[in-house]
Amino acid sequence: MRTTLILAISGSLRSASLNTTLLRAAARLAPFGMCIELFGELGMLPLFNPDIEATNPPAVANFRSRLLAADGVLIASPEYAHGITGAMKNALDWMVGCETFINKPVALLNASPRAVHAQASLKETLATMSARIVDEASIAVPVLGAKLDEAGIVSHPVISAALCEALREFQVAIAGYQAEDAAGGRVIA
Amino acid sequence: MRTTLILAISGSLRSASLNTTLLRAAARLAPFGMCIELFGELGMLPLFNPDIEATNPPAVANFRSRLLAADGVLIASPEYAHGITGAMKNALDWMVGCETFINKPVALLNASPRAVHAQASLKETLATMSARIVDEASIAVPVLGAKLDEAGIVSHPVISAALCEALREFQVAIAGYQAEDAAGGRVIA
Repeated sequence: MRTTLILAISGSLRSASLNTTLLRAAARLAPFGMCIELFGELGMLPLFNPDIEATNPPAVANFRSRLLAADGVLIASPEYAHGITGAMKNALDWMVGCETFINKPVALLNASPRAVHAQASLKETLATMSARIVDEASIAVPVLGAKLDEAGIVSHPVISAALCEALREFQVAIAGYQAEDAAGGRVIA
Repeated sequence: MRTTLILAISGSLRSASLNTTLLRAAARLAPFGMCIELFGELGMLPLFNPDIEATNPPAVANFRSRLLAADGVLIASPEYAHGITGAMKNALDWMVGCETFINKPVALLNASPRAVHAQASLKETLATMSARIVDEASIAVPVLGAKLDEAGIVSHPVISAALCEALREFQVAIAGYQAEDAAGGRVIA
């Protein structure tokens, strides 16, 4: 069985971002057979402008190829003023036209259980882009409330177990979709 | 009475944007005593990063001073994949920390009556930023459905009348807020 490659995207550009920390911890907790790579170039993307979409800017082309190569996408994005971050939405705006997210398995982690508006907006947009959102793998982890850093998350018995379980669910769901796709689509009984 | 200065912001960077077209038409229909200036530098803003917020990037400082000088803000922003545009949210993200929108009268035009998700997100974020959203001045105009350009909007009897009425409502609301603020806050009867 080949390794399942996951692209992890943090919706915050802050170097000490809790959501980025959560994704780094998830990468260390990835189950056997799964590799989680953090996408570090979200801040390199220009602001989305349909007029320059056809020119395929290098940062956009890089983002697209990283997504295409991934078996699944793991997103953790903060909430700014009850909304999705502009940086996260901007990245998704670039991918609407090229259909990179169609049928892509996506799990949504959340470093703040109170960030419900941004999470709902993100889910609505990804569903509109025809991503396969894996709810069983989408969990909120109280990183801020528990005052945890990356090592703290990895060594926390309850939180690390919840993350491991979410990642295993993600792996199972991805394998299921891949089997389905290989068989030529979902079988209607 | 001094002129009421309105900063108009389009959430699309596309040069032929319907929302920008709508704002240009609104500028031509502004009532006596109101001047509507289109903000043309949304695409100059860097992606919001809390780590560089304190450095006050020139494009951000310019946006902030234009907002501070305005008596009100008129926004028209499209919907991308059932969400606010990244470019629009990015601009707002920069203004959360500096409180530019606190008590600022805002009217939301909408060039597509079907763009309900983005409009709701925009409203939620602006309300969270303590803007005064003037509902009487916030109208949807079917620019796409009616296949209208700027001149077409200005000369359309029904649509131009609706826009003029919305702008007058905006002017009245702003004058009311200014009188209230000058009197030291809202009077509770």
